[in-house]
Amino acid sequence: MIWTVYLSGEIHTDWREQIQAGAQAAGLPVEFTAPVTNHDASDAAGDVLGDESDSFWRDHKSAKVNGIRTQTLIEMCDLAVIRFGDKYKQWNAAFDAGYCAALGTPYITLHDKDIIHPLKEVDAAAMAWAQTPEQVVEVLKYVTTAQ
Amino acid sequence: MIWTVYLSGEIHTDWREQIQAGAQAAGLPVEFTAPVTNHDASDAAGDVLGDESDSFWRDHKSAKVNGIRTQTLIEMCDLAVIRFGDKYKQWNAAFDAGYCAALGTPYITLHDKDIIHPLKEVDAAAMAWAQTPEQVVEVLKYVTTAQ
Amino acid sequence: MIWTVYLSGEIHTDWREQIQAGAQAAGLPVEFTAPVTNHDASDAAGDVLGDESDSFWRDHKSAKVNGIRTQTLIEMCDLAVIRFGDKYKQWNAAFDAGYCAALGTPYITLHDKDIIHPLKEVDAAAMAWAQTPEQVVEVLKYVTTAQ
Amino acid sequence: MIWTVYLSGEIHTDWREQIQAGAQAAGLPVEFTAPVTNHDASDAAGDVLGDESDSFWRDHKSAKVNGIRTQTLIEMCDLAVIRFGDKYKQWNAAFDAGYCAALGTPYITLHDKDIIHPLKEVDAAAMAWAQTPEQVVEVLKYVTTAQ
Amino acid sequence: MIWTVYLSGEIHTDWREQIQAGAQAAGLPVEFTAPVTNHDASDAAGDVLGDESDSFWRDHKSAKVNGIRTQTLIEMCDLAVIRFGDKYKQWNAAFDAGYCAALGTPYITLHDKDIIHPLKEVDAAAMAWAQTPEQVVEVLKYVTTAQ
Amino acid sequence: MIWTVYLSGEIHTDWREQIQAGAQAAGLPVEFTAPVTNHDASDAAGDVLGDESDSFWRDHKSAKVNGIRTQTLIEMCDLAVIRFGDKYKQWNAAFDAGYCAALGTPYITLHDKDIIHPLKEVDAAAMAWAQTPEQVVEVLKYVTTAQ
Amino acid sequence: MIWTVYLSGEIHTDWREQIQAGAQAAGLPVEFTAPVTNHDASDAAGDVLGDESDSFWRDHKSAKVNGIRTQTLIEMCDLAVIRFGDKYKQWNAAFDAGYCAALGTPYITLHDKDIIHPLKEVDAAAMAWAQTPEQVVEVLKYVTTAQ
Amino acid sequence: MIWTVYLSGEIHTDWREQIQAGAQAAGLPVEFTAPVTNHDASDAAGDVLGDESDSFWRDHKSAKVNGIRTQTLIEMCDLAVIRFGDKYKQWNAAFDAGYCAALGTPYITLHDKDIIHPLKEVDAAAMAWAQTPEQVVEVLKYVTTAQ
Repeated sequence: MIWTVYLSGEIHTDWREQIQAGAQAAGLPVEFTAPVTNHDASDAAGDVLGDESDSFWRDHKSAKVNGIRTQTLIEMCDLAVIRFGDKYKQWNAAFDAGYCAALGTPYITLHDKDIIHPLKEVDAAAMAWAQTPEQVVEVLKYVTTAQ
Repeated sequence: MIWTVYLSGEIHTDWREQIQAGAQAAGLPVEFTAPVTNHDASDAAGDVLGDESDSFWRDHKSAKVNGIRTQTLIEMCDLAVIRFGDKYKQWNAAFDAGYCAALGTPYITLHDKDIIHPLKEVDAAAMAWAQTPEQVVEVLKYVTTAQ
Repeated sequence: MIWTVYLSGEIHTDWREQIQAGAQAAGLPVEFTAPVTNHDASDAAGDVLGDESDSFWRDHKSAKVNGIRTQTLIEMCDLAVIRFGDKYKQWNAAFDAGYCAALGTPYITLHDKDIIHPLKEVDAAAMAWAQTPEQVVEVLKYVTTAQ
Repeated sequence: MIWTVYLSGEIHTDWREQIQAGAQAAGLPVEFTAPVTNHDASDAAGDVLGDESDSFWRDHKSAKVNGIRTQTLIEMCDLAVIRFGDKYKQWNAAFDAGYCAALGTPYITLHDKDIIHPLKEVDAAAMAWAQTPEQVVEVLKYVTTAQ
Repeated sequence: MIWTVYLSGEIHTDWREQIQAGAQAAGLPVEFTAPVTNHDASDAAGDVLGDESDSFWRDHKSAKVNGIRTQTLIEMCDLAVIRFGDKYKQWNAAFDAGYCAALGTPYITLHDKDIIHPLKEVDAAAMAWAQTPEQVVEVLKYVTTAQ
Repeated sequence: MIWTVYLSGEIHTDWREQIQAGAQAAGLPVEFTAPVTNHDASDAAGDVLGDESDSFWRDHKSAKVNGIRTQTLIEMCDLAVIRFGDKYKQWNAAFDAGYCAALGTPYITLHDKDIIHPLKEVDAAAMAWAQTPEQVVEVLKYVTTAQ
Repeated sequence: MIWTVYLSGEIHTDWREQIQAGAQAAGLPVEFTAPVTNHDASDAAGDVLGDESDSFWRDHKSAKVNGIRTQTLIEMCDLAVIRFGDKYKQWNAAFDAGYCAALGTPYITLHDKDIIHPLKEVDAAAMAWAQTPEQVVEVLKYVTTAQ
Repeated sequence: MIWTVYLSGEIHTDWREQIQAGAQAAGLPVEFTAPVTNHDASDAAGDVLGDESDSFWRDHKSAKVNGIRTQTLIEMCDLAVIRFGDKYKQWNAAFDAGYCAALGTPYITLHDKDIIHPLKEVDAAAMAWAQTPEQVVEVLKYVTTAQ
């Protein structure tokens, strides 16, 4: 069995690459999926459908086009890793966590100690809390290979 | 039919009271539910089950006890209103939005213009975005009474 | 048991009133629900949330506000009656039929003979096709009272 | 991952071929499915099961045989594109949109500007509205390849 | 809690009345539902929608109108009792049993010993097999009152 | 796409072989599944788990072992063909039809004209009624290849 | 809102009565349900359907009759409390916990410290672990009244 | 079709190996999955995420990490075999049985005669009870190959 793992959240550090590299080095039976992580491309996802003068609707159109990808990938994954960094609101990451929780899809959170308190509801519905990508790789290794 | 409306999110302003007062004044067939909105009581929700020396686990226990209430009320509501204020991380509000989205439960967001961009994914899955409690009451009136 | 019957579709004739009057006269254990049937009010449903200069987005906002009502009432009904008249596109009526079909909610279509062919997919998933409100009342009587 | 995209609606222009050609030219990881698009064959789908003297039942039988194909393909697709042309009632297209909406399957509408208003409910539940097949291909490219 | 019990199957003996009388005598918190049990009325259920010259379609229309009632009542019941008598094919009773099994709705079969073998698949998915209405009443009493 | 078609019902004639041969000759993209069709083996399915002195329990054990196979294959199929012959009670076939109906899985019935009336509920929930294996093959060809 | 709380597990001490008394004293909006807690009656639940010479089948019949009650009450409850005492295998309590977990129904475990390790999987899927009935009452009070 | 069979329960004897060897010898189309069966590794599954001073939380963390694996594999399996040995509490095995029951996933229990009575609820929801791994292999052979 190949496990499909969705990597949700922060797009400004290389945590996805670290997890993917670690999984590859360990030869794990894991396939990773992710949202579009190019910030500008993501914001412009709906522009091909026509320009908008109102920024609310430009955001709305782009968020919906992105939603085709993210909703589908979340519904297909076996496990999600949801990363909260130290900047920005990152409400989309918390949204994804709630989405997983309602679906019964297990997820692991990845964040530093200093945001434990505001993330307590998100962590309470998680199967694990990791602080580093290396820990995530270790959990993936154990879960997918029993080693 | 009585509509059950869950009021999720910010607990530091009186937006819930405004909506409830407006709905009552208009005689709407609506019953409101909400999480525990007393911040200290919410943080201490798990203390009755034994003290914890580690703050992560204290938060964890309390968040799970709160989760009994919030998960149940969200799954029972017909509609949610999800409020984002101008302070704090409010990841639990975004988590509730994602939970509603996955269940197919319609929700309305309530927030100011200046946080449109970080909330675009949350708004994209919403049925409406309101800026004031009065607008929420108007929408509730229309939706529940066809007037 | 009180049956909840959703009356979807055409808003320019009095078919809803005829069915309701017939059901009341027969003392049927039926509660009727319906979308907002005031055309202008329906088109303006989202205006309270702010004006839109682009008619697509005005329609979009209003359709979503209406959707809070219609999606909820459809998901709650035991049976739907879906009426197609002789004017307009009435795509929302066909949309409601598809929504019912996917939910497994039984529905009855109400339309004239001359639109049998374009409605064949909608009729194929229906539990009955009626041509008059009187026939609908007769079916409701039989189904809800066994008489 | 190969995305399965169902192409619903109008059968009198070559919009399906344009999208398929565009996707192939771009090398997209997409597999397309569709209803039977031969109008006469579709109308005659049930004839093999015996002749009908009443046109309602001939339509009914054919629509149900077609329904085996369309219901199955819609339930299996990751995404649907639903096309409304400028002729005919096209209630089956709106029915498919409602079916997708109830399943939570994302869909994109494809239609001209002049039918925005009658399609507002169908568009309100869509993830995107496109006006040309080229735009659909662009969205598919972005959604499936993140480029 | 009031338990809703659907009484499916044979319509030519008074087993329903016996169970209802026994439950009433024992004061059980049970509400019974049933299909239309008047054979002629059931066969004619669709006639109000227009005459049919082909008996297949007359049966079809009537079966669908009956299906509005039976499907809804089965989906709403907490428990079904499914009776097989010694005459007729009674495929509708076995159909109801399969329907309950797929929904996860518990059911009790009620039939004589001499049809154990042909009913083995139906009994295998049942929660109990009773041979008399009195036994059904005893089981209902135990299940609903713990006595 | 390969369609999985479950062949339920009568085990005393070669209708399954006829359908399979016809599908193979036509090169259809169909994979067939079926219950164990060896009557004696089916009756003895539970014997390996220990002898039973009571025939009810022998039947029960065997029916449950068979149920592991049949329930799984029905839940996995895209389409079922349900055959009623002219002998025996065949309640298991009607049970399978009800199971499919509740799951929303389309099915085709295959039976002669003389049992239309007792099968009316089963046919009412079917997508098609065929009288010969050749007709079934034709429908499969149309549905799976659009030809 | 009245919360329905299912009290599963140990039947040899008065923990149910303690919780019910505590909830009543506090005036909580809670309705309690439970399996049949009379051990002998529970073991004999199926006897009314006929004697069995084989103890496996006697147990089987009784367990299924009890299952009508327990499965229904578990599926209807908003919250379960699952009690493990210091005697017996109590596999039915763990079974109920797994059932709740799969349904997404929140549950609280109630057990002493000395069985933490063997219950770790059961506790991991729980929303809270209590050691005394008083603690359960406190949690119910908080969850149902926000106080 | 390859059947996926989850082997749940006892980890102190070689029953899994016996079933796998038997299935392989018979060339069955079966793929087996299992929880981590190394007791010490399982207890330490969460240690990589940080040490815990409180044994409850160490168990909790490890059980949740194990839960990522077990919940996913159970939800993916076509059939489970659930083994109860003669030692330990084995509540996790009963938990898995309840989880399967709620999902509608068929399972076979594997245990000795002397624990029939305490396992009656678990057996009542099972499709078969086997006493030896050889019997399980025989059932798998019959179910997956019809021989």
